Amino acid sequence: MDAEIIAVGSELLLGQIANTNAQFLSQELAGLGVNVYYHTVVGDNRERLSDAIAHAQERADLIIFSGGLGPTKDDLTKETIAKSLGRELVYDEKAMEAIEDYFRKTKRVMTENNKKQALVIEGSSVLANDHGMAPGMALEAEGKKYMLFPGPPRELKPMFLNYGTTYLQKGFHTREHIVSRVLRFFGIGESQLETKILDLIDAQTNPTIAPLAGFGEVTLRLTSKSSTSEEAYRLIDSLETTILSRVGDYFYGYGDTTLENEVFKRLLDSGRTIACAESLTGGWFSKTLTDLSGSSGVFNGGIVCYTNEVKENVLKVPDTVLEKDGAVSEACAKALAENVRELLGADIGISFTGVAGPDKSEDKEVGTVYIGIAEDGAPVRVHSLLLAGGRGRIRSQTMKHGFFQLLKAGGR
Amino acid sequence: MDAEIIAVGSELLLGQIANTNAQFLSQELAGLGVNVYYHTVVGDNRERLSDAIAHAQERADLIIFSGGLGPTKDDLTKETIAKSLGRELVYDEKAMEAIEDYFRKTKRVMTENNKKQALVIEGSSVLANDHGMAPGMALEAEGKKYMLFPGPPRELKPMFLNYGTTYLQKGFHTREHIVSRVLRFFGIGESQLETKILDLIDAQTNPTIAPLAGFGEVTLRLTSKSSTSEEAYRLIDSLETTILSRVGDYFYGYGDTTLENEVFKRLLDSGRTIACAESLTGGWFSKTLTDLSGSSGVFNGGIVCYTNEVKENVLKVPDTVLEKDGAVSEACAKALAENVRELLGADIGISFTGVAGPDKSEDKEVGTVYIGIAEDGAPVRVHSLLLAGGRGRIRSQTMKHGFFQLLKAGGR
Repeated sequence: MDAEIIAVGSELLLGQIANTNAQFLSQELAGLGVNVYYHTVVGDNRERLSDAIAHAQERADLIIFSGGLGPTKDDLTKETIAKSLGRELVYDEKAMEAIEDYFRKTKRVMTENNKKQALVIEGSSVLANDHGMAPGMALEAEGKKYMLFPGPPRELKPMFLNYGTTYLQKGFHTREHIVSRVLRFFGIGESQLETKILDLIDAQTNPTIAPLAGFGEVTLRLTSKSSTSEEAYRLIDSLETTILSRVGDYFYGYGDTTLENEVFKRLLDSGRTIACAESLTGGWFSKTLTDLSGSSGVFNGGIVCYTNEVKENVLKVPDTVLEKDGAVSEACAKALAENVRELLGADIGISFTGVAGPDKSEDKEVGTVYIGIAEDGAPVRVHSLLLAGGRGRIRSQTMKHGFFQLLKAGGR
Repeated sequence: MDAEIIAVGSELLLGQIANTNAQFLSQELAGLGVNVYYHTVVGDNRERLSDAIAHAQERADLIIFSGGLGPTKDDLTKETIAKSLGRELVYDEKAMEAIEDYFRKTKRVMTENNKKQALVIEGSSVLANDHGMAPGMALEAEGKKYMLFPGPPRELKPMFLNYGTTYLQKGFHTREHIVSRVLRFFGIGESQLETKILDLIDAQTNPTIAPLAGFGEVTLRLTSKSSTSEEAYRLIDSLETTILSRVGDYFYGYGDTTLENEVFKRLLDSGRTIACAESLTGGWFSKTLTDLSGSSGVFNGGIVCYTNEVKENVLKVPDTVLEKDGAVSEACAKALAENVRELLGADIGISFTGVAGPDKSEDKEVGTVYIGIAEDGAPVRVHSLLLAGGRGRIRSQTMKHGFFQLLKAGGR
């Protein structure tokens, strides 16, 4: 099955936003074993959209559209597709009810043009929109499949994951169940991880293994097909066990999770609190943890000790440590972790000190990093790293290593 | 002039990266007055790339390619275009020298396939690559313009800005100088700003005014054309003066600058230092300031006071304030700003306290925010805000309002 993704919206052609919908859909379709051969972006223009549809019909079996399902005159995706297929638009009752319900709940007045959003292409399966008003659609015509999704990513993504994939799997693999699972790794490079499982990658048929690297992390997407979903899951479970027996030390979670999410869950489960002392990360660890709603239950606070004076006066790092070992040292990381834990009254203290660059500091190389973790009843552990890359990468990797070490400390 | 942007690369079709090159090029072309009507993404496949070129030739006067100029067999953009135009590839001496020079400098061994990168399409102007090895190209054939850029954004962007725009301006506006300037605003919505300059927008011819909103900021791109660049600049200067006479209170800088950059420059110039106390922003202000290389010269540090205990014990907010007014109050913001300034020995103290949500706190509405600024010799100023949106937006807008108020405090 060959697919083309057509994004409709002048805001894309003006460069106001990037086409992240095509990226998301491509990733998901790859996981389902669908080949994506083209992305097209076209503006809110009937003639050029018709042209794009005609080209796609020549070269794809599955055409997925994003955008142009809203209430205004600009939004003309479904009208144009319907016309190209010689079909009518009809009101979908459920969609209409959902729209009326939305306006009732938000106590806003529904203008007439909002009804337009409940119009769907005749003969299509409606994909419910759980995060907005415009429903999606899926249909088949002349041997080709068409799927229509709203433009906002927060509406498109759950619609595709919850309803789109089911439709696709039902349709073109009538006797096949496709199961996909993403394993997330940190602290190992893509090529290093690949080397350790190269025989598995070379021999892959079912399940398939798709590695992907980004933002200092590596993921493996395992995808299996079988006539029953039980068997498909069994195949994935078995492959996962083999993979983790080799690189389990770097594994930290499944699917869309993040390092901070896993740490947050672990802290919540154990009822423990954390505090941090940040030098080179400058508040990034705190910021990332407090991005999570509910983090006040596990996070007491932090000290960004960017200067030696703050390390000494506020965090009571002994001046002998700063003079002899320096601020970028195991001894300093140790003192920072212990003292921030005590000062902020937390169960765990974590500290970050190092050289983010661009210049050396205290004659220590750019990328030299120490992370201290102090826990009640255990000696302080200090992890030393030598990170490559520019200032931004060194800081973000340091922050992520902190979360990763907290997970390891929990004894996975 | 109608343009199409064709990105070549299977990594885009697999969703490994988003097509940010198309976004960048679209923004720039809009600034130059070029209409972009299509984006296309195609994989590293000769046949499908040929097909994409043929379609683009039917509908565009200017076709811009990104990607596929590297040394490996996968990279076939220039070969395929050359074939479609019936031209040969020829070695460019300057490009070859640059490549050899690169290998000499990095003391790496040059493999034979690297020479391929010095091949350019016969009759094209070579666009130098100041950040990599593969040169770009610009050429005209059968009344259409073609431009080829390497895929990595850090190579494409400067090449387009430094050489691409000059080529385009020379080519299709032989007697015209185009000048473009971006004005950045904060603290005012897009529709509110538009309303205040609606007469100017409605009457625009030369210069043109293009508003753009994103990440809680609004920009106006002014673009003027004239037979001399002096006159083009004069037209822009004059329009800018008119605009700033109406909305200058919200203006903070030009071009690609950021609020934190402007604050950083201001602090550096005045030789003053800053410290912060962050509750709802959780370290985001510190993190953003320390993203900037050299920030240690102006930033002493910060306290993330996520709990009342930290506010009281570390930052010495009087318990009467916490009991009577609460942590989310003008009095608390005032105490935090004063005390963090003193505790961390800085010239300026800034504080952030508020309700990021999702739930109310101390019976105060989600979005209630107080920002305190304490400076030597001046009474503490507290700005109160009521921000809309989810947790992420409230936090980011609070952080940005902090930087904006620091700029205003400096008396622009």
